Amino acid sequence: MDRIGFIGLGLMGKPMALNLIKKGFSLVVHSRSQAPVDAVVAAGAKAASSPADVAAQCDIVITMVPDSPDVRQVVEGPKGLFETARAGSILVDMSTIAPAVARELATKAAARGLTMLDAPVSGGEIGAVNATLSIMVGGDAAALERVRPVFNAVGNPERVVHIGPAGAGQVCKACNQICIGGALASVSEAFAIARKAGIDPAKVREALLGGFAASRVLEVHGERILKGNYVPGFKTKLYHKDLGIVGQTIHELAVSAPVAALVQQYVSALMAAGRGEEDYSSLAKAVFDASGLE
Amino acid sequence: MDRIGFIGLGLMGKPMALNLIKKGFSLVVHSRSQAPVDAVVAAGAKAASSPADVAAQCDIVITMVPDSPDVRQVVEGPKGLFETARAGSILVDMSTIAPAVARELATKAAARGLTMLDAPVSGGEIGAVNATLSIMVGGDAAALERVRPVFNAVGNPERVVHIGPAGAGQVCKACNQICIGGALASVSEAFAIARKAGIDPAKVREALLGGFAASRVLEVHGERILKGNYVPGFKTKLYHKDLGIVGQTIHELAVSAPVAALVQQYVSALMAAGRGEEDYSSLAKAVFDASGLE
Repeated sequence: MDRIGFIGLGLMGKPMALNLIKKGFSLVVHSRSQAPVDAVVAAGAKAASSPADVAAQCDIVITMVPDSPDVRQVVEGPKGLFETARAGSILVDMSTIAPAVARELATKAAARGLTMLDAPVSGGEIGAVNATLSIMVGGDAAALERVRPVFNAVGNPERVVHIGPAGAGQVCKACNQICIGGALASVSEAFAIARKAGIDPAKVREALLGGFAASRVLEVHGERILKGNYVPGFKTKLYHKDLGIVGQTIHELAVSAPVAALVQQYVSALMAAGRGEEDYSSLAKAVFDASGLE
Repeated sequence: MDRIGFIGLGLMGKPMALNLIKKGFSLVVHSRSQAPVDAVVAAGAKAASSPADVAAQCDIVITMVPDSPDVRQVVEGPKGLFETARAGSILVDMSTIAPAVARELATKAAARGLTMLDAPVSGGEIGAVNATLSIMVGGDAAALERVRPVFNAVGNPERVVHIGPAGAGQVCKACNQICIGGALASVSEAFAIARKAGIDPAKVREALLGGFAASRVLEVHGERILKGNYVPGFKTKLYHKDLGIVGQTIHELAVSAPVAALVQQYVSALMAAGRGEEDYSSLAKAVFDASGLE
């Protein structure tokens, strides 16, 4: 079994790394904070001093960091993966970043004899802990097959999907965030209408779950909204980051996507209201605020 | 068992009436077109010459007609239900109409010693045929209990929900149409982005069904959109009518609901493009058109 490198032990990365160890993978890890490194080393991983140190020891290296600049830093920065990665190695970026950056790094990797996959995930911290993530993969199909056992160990094997060439995984993740946002905004507007009409939105949720309006957003986030429970989950500030990628991608592709743009506006209003640390289902608060509801 | 009146044997009403007969209810029917009356009479119903003729023979009368003016006509027009309905009777309007009209008619009914429920449905023609409709009920709870066996015969008993007072069922139906529209528009935008990026939207659908973006719209309408199969189902022109009610309701309540407004604009574009007779999932065509996609 390949020795696996894992860089970025945050809210998502740490439980993913622990699942890999639990399933028998030999792991070499690196992260900016020491505490999660200690926890993962205690579980059996080996610590490395830098991304370059990780790549020197592994043929498959996973990165799980916040944003495009972080991935650039880890991959092509000083002491980055490109400094030491051996030809034939596979770099797997599971962060959510701009499709254009994913494509650019994949091209640079190929010029060095490396293969880079973009493989962002959906399912949040709970999905990372329970190893039920959906994984949207862009890049070389043969490389995906080599990495598949790793994906199967951190995600739902039935939801590891090869979307297309380099960058396609990130485009799919953008699509994912748009669909969630459209559902979240419309559920929130529906609840606002019910509340203004003096009707219990819990009854609306109950009735709607039986028909074509049924969605995981209505089911899970709908319940959060009814309870006013905005403990994350997935933080608004990260959703705001993702919607920046969505907005940029829409613009570059010259797609007209006004619902996606509206969702981005709602989330900007949340950031302006100081709600960045709450769960992103607090989008409902932006909708309620706009109609003078508590 | 009460003898049940049923007025309006259209795409939805006819299969609902047939289900009631199949489940042992004694039915008196009336409809503008003769053909469905003949079909339902052949199945065992008795035909009446007018709504007033129906109400003279039944203590529970169901109406299932296209829009608010049609309900007004049947209820308070010449030879309407109000002319002959006996005190204590229950009028059940299962059409999708404006909440304000539902409330007004319920008030007028109460002044005559009648009880009126608004009980719009979700689930479409297939739900009507299979007796799996969701039913959103506004009005008196005791009257709902008396009518419940009828609802259980045409819908899913677990999805017969008492939403609130008169008009609440119609408000809930408006919420239903908003949630479906928000999901449909965002799925369509996501597919447009995938297509513009040269990615197969079928792969996007497959990946997204595993996570928080999962919805019945993505599952069922997503597949229709991928196949370009816009055979109704539920016609765009009826969805356009429903969104008129949504727009009016939002305005009257002074709710800010921009996603709902956008969905209404998309559907107006469909009507302008002559797509009224197609399934309403052809909303995707309005989205694709706006981005220069076939």
